[in-house]
Amino acid sequence: MNLLVVGFVIGTALLIEGGLIALPLFAALWYHEPVMPWLITMAVCLVPGFLLRRKKVETEGLLSKEGVVSTGLCWIVLSLTGMLPFLLCGAVASPIDAFFETVSGFTTTGSTILRSVEVLPRSLLLWRSFLHWIGGMGILVFMMALIPLSGGTQMNLMKAESPGPSISKLVPKAQDTARILYAIYGVMTIVTIVILFLLKMPLFDAVCIGFGAAGTGGFSVLDSGCASYTYAQQVVITIAMTVFGVNFNFYYLIYLKRIKDALRMEEVRAYLAILLGAILLVTVDIALVGKATNVLLTFHQAAFHCSSIMTTTGYATLDMNAWPSFSRTIIMLLMVVGACAGSTGGGLKVSRVILLFKSLARECTKILHPAAIKKVHMDGRTVDETVIRSTQTYFFIYVLGMVFSILLVSIDNRGWDTTISAVFATFNNIGPGFGAVGSINNFADFSPFAKVVLSMDMLIGRLEIFPIVLLFTKQTWRKF
Amino acid sequence: MNLLVVGFVIGTALLIEGGLIALPLFAALWYHEPVMPWLITMAVCLVPGFLLRRKKVETEGLLSKEGVVSTGLCWIVLSLTGMLPFLLCGAVASPIDAFFETVSGFTTTGSTILRSVEVLPRSLLLWRSFLHWIGGMGILVFMMALIPLSGGTQMNLMKAESPGPSISKLVPKAQDTARILYAIYGVMTIVTIVILFLLKMPLFDAVCIGFGAAGTGGFSVLDSGCASYTYAQQVVITIAMTVFGVNFNFYYLIYLKRIKDALRMEEVRAYLAILLGAILLVTVDIALVGKATNVLLTFHQAAFHCSSIMTTTGYATLDMNAWPSFSRTIIMLLMVVGACAGSTGGGLKVSRVILLFKSLARECTKILHPAAIKKVHMDGRTVDETVIRSTQTYFFIYVLGMVFSILLVSIDNRGWDTTISAVFATFNNIGPGFGAVGSINNFADFSPFAKVVLSMDMLIGRLEIFPIVLLFTKQTWRKF
Repeated sequence: MNLLVVGFVIGTALLIEGGLIALPLFAALWYHEPVMPWLITMAVCLVPGFLLRRKKVETEGLLSKEGVVSTGLCWIVLSLTGMLPFLLCGAVASPIDAFFETVSGFTTTGSTILRSVEVLPRSLLLWRSFLHWIGGMGILVFMMALIPLSGGTQMNLMKAESPGPSISKLVPKAQDTARILYAIYGVMTIVTIVILFLLKMPLFDAVCIGFGAAGTGGFSVLDSGCASYTYAQQVVITIAMTVFGVNFNFYYLIYLKRIKDALRMEEVRAYLAILLGAILLVTVDIALVGKATNVLLTFHQAAFHCSSIMTTTGYATLDMNAWPSFSRTIIMLLMVVGACAGSTGGGLKVSRVILLFKSLARECTKILHPAAIKKVHMDGRTVDETVIRSTQTYFFIYVLGMVFSILLVSIDNRGWDTTISAVFATFNNIGPGFGAVGSINNFADFSPFAKVVLSMDMLIGRLEIFPIVLLFTKQTWRKF
Repeated sequence: MNLLVVGFVIGTALLIEGGLIALPLFAALWYHEPVMPWLITMAVCLVPGFLLRRKKVETEGLLSKEGVVSTGLCWIVLSLTGMLPFLLCGAVASPIDAFFETVSGFTTTGSTILRSVEVLPRSLLLWRSFLHWIGGMGILVFMMALIPLSGGTQMNLMKAESPGPSISKLVPKAQDTARILYAIYGVMTIVTIVILFLLKMPLFDAVCIGFGAAGTGGFSVLDSGCASYTYAQQVVITIAMTVFGVNFNFYYLIYLKRIKDALRMEEVRAYLAILLGAILLVTVDIALVGKATNVLLTFHQAAFHCSSIMTTTGYATLDMNAWPSFSRTIIMLLMVVGACAGSTGGGLKVSRVILLFKSLARECTKILHPAAIKKVHMDGRTVDETVIRSTQTYFFIYVLGMVFSILLVSIDNRGWDTTISAVFATFNNIGPGFGAVGSINNFADFSPFAKVVLSMDMLIGRLEIFPIVLLFTKQTWRKF
């Protein structure tokens, strides 16, 4: 393990975090709120950042192993520093709560331990939502967009931080890919904020909600969540969430005017089909079993929440605990499927689900006709067997991780509704669950141990398991 | 599809079922109970059986595809005929209930829709438990032991009916393997019954409980389950269940005096380690959180239920709903892991879990050192990549099947405890679950639709998914 290069990467990320603190600092000045918390946090980021970068290192030395370790450590360190404002502003008293809230922000989960958010300073609310925006596309991707690193280094970092079964390079150079991604991301975020503002949402809310929708986070700035926004605003939020759950390759292809290729992307088509199917099933279920009378309103609510959950955002306008069992099961399924790879959403990712189904179909053929030879195709190309194997292995560790977490959280001795959905909601970076962690409740009542487990779940889910899990294996730290 | 050969296999199985009816018929005569239900059922099995076998067919024509289809259809047809006594004896009124109960017997599940079993005729109780014994080792395996079929045919049937990631042939000839398996099975069952009888259990109970433990079924003959048996009898049941959950290769190696090879079997060691670990965790949890004072009794109860659940038997001496959440989660995990491949138990099977973990470890190495080449080993041999791929695909369809069933059963709009554990209990051929399907309750209150879904789950679980699922795909019935 080349610790110098790992330190260099973490140092760079700390400098960037220190720079990003400028936004809430500016907000604190604007709203006449205390600035000391922000100045202190900035110093805590910048000083070690500079120290870690003092030694000039050859970033060529960052191999696959160091890439994985750097990514995992980076996210933990940035969460530990990013949580300082929560403590310094007096929003929470316990470091575990502050860590939980910050990780929830960075990983675009949106689960909160705060019983009320309206009492917080605006600068802190902005920081919470800004965390979503930074974490959505990835802080290391952001770093790559800004700072030139050697090619291999970038690939190894990108591989570790980007979600999906295989890395999707838009262009040969990783730095250019990172820049294109952030350009698309930035423009779409601004468009969302502007539309919400034009629909008479207060600018502060529009910015925070825009950050949350873009990063598929889900922290709200009102205790009522999104319930008090107008229907028009809710519709815009629904569309925005859905848009940010799409694979960004889609937008890049559109930008290149390759509309046909974009429309042919299997993952995007499946994503929209699943979402639409879920919305219709939930609408019908609530209308028939839940005896809702206003079908249009029911459809609107179903669309908002299905989109919110499938994109792993987690905004809510009502308490889904009141929905019939079938609808709630659909929601749990959407939690697992998640958004597209290469989007800001979490979950298993639609492309993985497609690959799993395709390899299942192949297995069926194999059973019926043992001699048949069949390849798996996607978007017209043959999928490499390594990708299929990794996807299947990923599915196992994904299920394993959730099951193991459920076991640990069940030590708290709460109902299965609460325990299972809390793990689903954090592991898939969604936010609210069911039972005592429903959208009108929060995670405050869990034991500190359960909060640590759920915090780790958020990190594990966001980084797709390995960068965090491998930090704790002997193999990683052993000389090879 | 060569339908003649499929018909021939089903006809043969029907003849065997007709023959096996002799046992409850004899019991009906002995206990002076009505014999007509048994005579009618026997006729319904034998007549079509003879008709289907009238045309001499070349069983060489039974390819992999026909093997899968024959197995799936066989189990459905045998359940449809085997359910007649339940209707004719007046035990249940609805054919759906009778089908559920019979499938539950054959698949060694042990879930019941009967509110009381003590009111049933003894011949019917014996039939229920006998179903477990027949289904445990497999009716087609039994058929092979009796009737010579061409080699390829037997292999293709055995592959479809035997549980586990790869077929374990003890000896080159499939018929000899089938005979050895049934010999071991028969001897061990008799030993169990004799010991229970020597411990003063009534002979009738001893036979039924012995059949249930051997087949890892779980139907009891008392409304109190196993609660009213003595501690000594319960200990024997615990040991018996554990013994029948072991891969039968183990016993064959012992019989061959290859003790060292037997003791080295990774699956058996893992199975016993998981079971012991679970027992200890549950004991500690109940002692600490559940505040149990008699630790020895707690250990006894934990051992009984962990063994009962992991071997997928389903006997119970108490209501596990009262256990703390952590213990119940452990039980849910045991439900999924299940017993060894090549045993009479259900679930995912320990050897699959081992393979999944080993391929996960390999993936970790691949991420850290992309150039590394690593094979997966088990019991000192390299595991074929095809087996690993099938195992990983199996894991996906296994999870998928359970999730899809949960979705369908949730239409009944009951709590998640009940819905999820009902699916877990049937899909893994266990019997009781939690909530409203706990060990002191039953499955009577589900809607007919949910009962059909759960019945199919039992068949799907017992036959390891494909033989049932492939019956419903176009690919199977299409000319290739």
